[in-house]
Amino acid sequence: MKKTLTELADYVGGKVAGDGSIEILGVMTIEDAAEGYITFVSNQKYENMINETKASAVIAAPHIKNSGKPLLVVDNPYLAYAKIVDLMMNVKPAHPKTIAPGATIDKNVSLGNGVTIYPNVFVGANCSIGDNTVLYPGVYIGEDCKIGSDTEIFPNAVVYKACSIGNRVTIHSNAVIGSPSFGYAPDGKTYYKIPHVGTTVIEDDVDIEPNTTISRAALGETRIKKGAKIGCLVAVAHSVEVGENTLIVAQSGIAGSVKIGNNVTIAGQTGVSGHLKIGDNTVIGGRSGVANDLPPNGVFLGAPAMPIKKMRKCYAAIARLPEMRDTVKELTKKVATLENKMK
Amino acid sequence: MKKTLTELADYVGGKVAGDGSIEILGVMTIEDAAEGYITFVSNQKYENMINETKASAVIAAPHIKNSGKPLLVVDNPYLAYAKIVDLMMNVKPAHPKTIAPGATIDKNVSLGNGVTIYPNVFVGANCSIGDNTVLYPGVYIGEDCKIGSDTEIFPNAVVYKACSIGNRVTIHSNAVIGSPSFGYAPDGKTYYKIPHVGTTVIEDDVDIEPNTTISRAALGETRIKKGAKIGCLVAVAHSVEVGENTLIVAQSGIAGSVKIGNNVTIAGQTGVSGHLKIGDNTVIGGRSGVANDLPPNGVFLGAPAMPIKKMRKCYAAIARLPEMRDTVKELTKKVATLENKMK
Amino acid sequence: MKKTLTELADYVGGKVAGDGSIEILGVMTIEDAAEGYITFVSNQKYENMINETKASAVIAAPHIKNSGKPLLVVDNPYLAYAKIVDLMMNVKPAHPKTIAPGATIDKNVSLGNGVTIYPNVFVGANCSIGDNTVLYPGVYIGEDCKIGSDTEIFPNAVVYKACSIGNRVTIHSNAVIGSPSFGYAPDGKTYYKIPHVGTTVIEDDVDIEPNTTISRAALGETRIKKGAKIGCLVAVAHSVEVGENTLIVAQSGIAGSVKIGNNVTIAGQTGVSGHLKIGDNTVIGGRSGVANDLPPNGVFLGAPAMPIKKMRKCYAAIARLPEMRDTVKELTKKVATLENKMK
Repeated sequence: MKKTLTELADYVGGKVAGDGSIEILGVMTIEDAAEGYITFVSNQKYENMINETKASAVIAAPHIKNSGKPLLVVDNPYLAYAKIVDLMMNVKPAHPKTIAPGATIDKNVSLGNGVTIYPNVFVGANCSIGDNTVLYPGVYIGEDCKIGSDTEIFPNAVVYKACSIGNRVTIHSNAVIGSPSFGYAPDGKTYYKIPHVGTTVIEDDVDIEPNTTISRAALGETRIKKGAKIGCLVAVAHSVEVGENTLIVAQSGIAGSVKIGNNVTIAGQTGVSGHLKIGDNTVIGGRSGVANDLPPNGVFLGAPAMPIKKMRKCYAAIARLPEMRDTVKELTKKVATLENKMK
Repeated sequence: MKKTLTELADYVGGKVAGDGSIEILGVMTIEDAAEGYITFVSNQKYENMINETKASAVIAAPHIKNSGKPLLVVDNPYLAYAKIVDLMMNVKPAHPKTIAPGATIDKNVSLGNGVTIYPNVFVGANCSIGDNTVLYPGVYIGEDCKIGSDTEIFPNAVVYKACSIGNRVTIHSNAVIGSPSFGYAPDGKTYYKIPHVGTTVIEDDVDIEPNTTISRAALGETRIKKGAKIGCLVAVAHSVEVGENTLIVAQSGIAGSVKIGNNVTIAGQTGVSGHLKIGDNTVIGGRSGVANDLPPNGVFLGAPAMPIKKMRKCYAAIARLPEMRDTVKELTKKVATLENKMK
Repeated sequence: MKKTLTELADYVGGKVAGDGSIEILGVMTIEDAAEGYITFVSNQKYENMINETKASAVIAAPHIKNSGKPLLVVDNPYLAYAKIVDLMMNVKPAHPKTIAPGATIDKNVSLGNGVTIYPNVFVGANCSIGDNTVLYPGVYIGEDCKIGSDTEIFPNAVVYKACSIGNRVTIHSNAVIGSPSFGYAPDGKTYYKIPHVGTTVIEDDVDIEPNTTISRAALGETRIKKGAKIGCLVAVAHSVEVGENTLIVAQSGIAGSVKIGNNVTIAGQTGVSGHLKIGDNTVIGGRSGVANDLPPNGVFLGAPAMPIKKMRKCYAAIARLPEMRDTVKELTKKVATLENKMK
């Protein structure tokens, strides 16, 4: 597929600076780009590479000037880049829209139109699966689940019984939805296992990356709200609520009964202790440990997490702690000397 | 199922305060409870909700008074709640107790009575599987494994060859038992892979959550002792020993050859360095990094882990480090001024 | 299999100190060893056990003297131990070298000689699989993948479409290779999913442990170079490059576009922020958080990571912070007293 720069600018709602008639073959990264390709700059770190890249054109924000190369100028270059890749390069797989002979469909399962079920899939009794949904090989869906339309569940992902999965949801390989959470009542000698009769609800447009576990509630539900995105190797415990369009990045862990607002970002390897509330629009930096409720619209970092400016000062102070210790020792001596002189 | 409050109190060994004749339909959380249901308070944080909940009765500890609602008074409300849910709401699945046609059972496998093997399971040669054990779809059991009775292995979990799994063990989806651990001998140029001819032993009544890996020993064994519970996304390396009734919460990692005592609790996202010993009954707070042996009966926190009271003081001091730095700077100036005056 | 101590010394290029004619039945750990077995000491911590072990001989470095037991003296005891275990105890599985009836092979797949494909495997269209490669039960290989020779992919591991896997690669159970990474362009209201049209390349002799995810690039490639070893539950994001013979230990996370040099060691539970560079031969201690580029040949620790000597001083200072705070408070009072006296 070839497109002129002007055609691409029109497609993403941008403007051309330079020759709009050049033909673009596709998108490449700024480091690897070859002649005939367009690239993009969305991270300041790479802006100085515009003059070095071999790309024939660059998708760039309005503040980029005088590159010497044709530009596709747009307010959100990252979004424009994604749309152009989708247009020119993203070949969607053609699923057979059939039930493979090697799949097992238990009794009383309702299948929508255009559903694809690959070999070695197991769908438990009383499930319903919406139109055009794809279950890749090795997927397991427990009994009494409701799966929406246009949803994709990738190989070997597992959905335990009686969960609800929305429309246009993506669940990647080896993710586990609806397993019982880590709950044990000590009985004096050993542990009584908490029965998990609640469920997990994954709303529309949620993405869940590989090897992530979203546990079910003991009572009630664990709920991942519309448009939330959960990275790989994340642990979401029982009764957690994740707000709309919230992002939880790889290897983070959310303990039981935490309520996370809308449009929150939780960066990678963060932990949130149980029963906390995190307000809307709050951002939590990577490797943080959240031990208290966090208000909306804040930016937090560290373990225990603090407002990011304060935490950065603490980090700087920690790096100079050994020198500070020496200073304090010296001051102690000097003060003792002064005290002696004053006696 | 309906039960009177008195019947439930008798069932869990508690007492009724108020009208014991009311009929209970089931258990709900204190936030969501509707009329006709019983709820429970086991976390102090929720005690003040007793007067707000719509539940018709509350399972509560003896110190809760005057709620205005009928109470089921019991020393351990959390345990009582779990038992009542099991009694009234926990529908156990009815497994077919057959070998599905789509399963593969290699030669010389011994199967107990009432075993259920679902489709797409693979059981290697020379395995034995005890009575009433359930292997869900997609489970893989390598050759020469011994699986006990009344054990459940959930979809797509994997047990490598020659492991031993006890009775009443639960292994959740996509957990991996008995894979070789991360062991490489540098040979000057690259690495020589350490052969892992040891095994993994999972004793009776152990639970292992989804996506957790319990590696096998290079020599000898990795052993998870009776009643231990291992959370999701945990890494347990070669030759580790986890004591009886010990809890290891989600995303923790235990490096090679660590010996953990009985009744230990290791909270989430903790790391324990190799070859350490952790004494019985010790508790390690979340996100800790254990770099030294820990004695029994202690409570530790932080990275590197310290006694929790000390660590909390350190956290408090870190939060005030920037101010302290300012104070030290000011003191330095003042002392210099004093020294000058004294010259 | 029995070997004399002299035969074993010859096999690993070492020397015997003591009676070389004794017969060795196999290798056991120093704690568990029985008469007739050889053990080894590669960790200083265990050197004092040489006199306690029941082993009949010990593989030891030249600095070990006067043990009273026959020694197999060799510069690298750990390597020698691994080679002897491989020789005497490591029974390699005999794979059937056939395609199991329960496997699904899509159209236009090229299979080398001696390939074993177990039941419930799915191989997508247009894949090629090299000689003697083994795909264990439940493995999924997406379309257009190239898998090398003598490679083993363990049960339920998943390789997404259009990835390239080298020769003598080991991918353990439930690892996920080539899934799209966590990439979303905010469009003002919600997120536009970044299409991932790049790939993942796993070069020769790479090992990937269970439940690890190696994401594909959005454009270009994620590349794990020859001989690198990736531990379990590790997250490697889009466009990362991991150098030759680099080790990344369990539960570490590498964010997008990080470039890691050759022979680097990243210990467990470490996080590396996006777009960073880590130089050759650098070592990063466990639970570190890398927030800046790191030069080659260094040793770093902590979060944020610092040179290890400095970080250790900081840790020591943190442990004494509460006392230091008291000292500073006292100094403040004393200085105020002195200032008053001087007025």
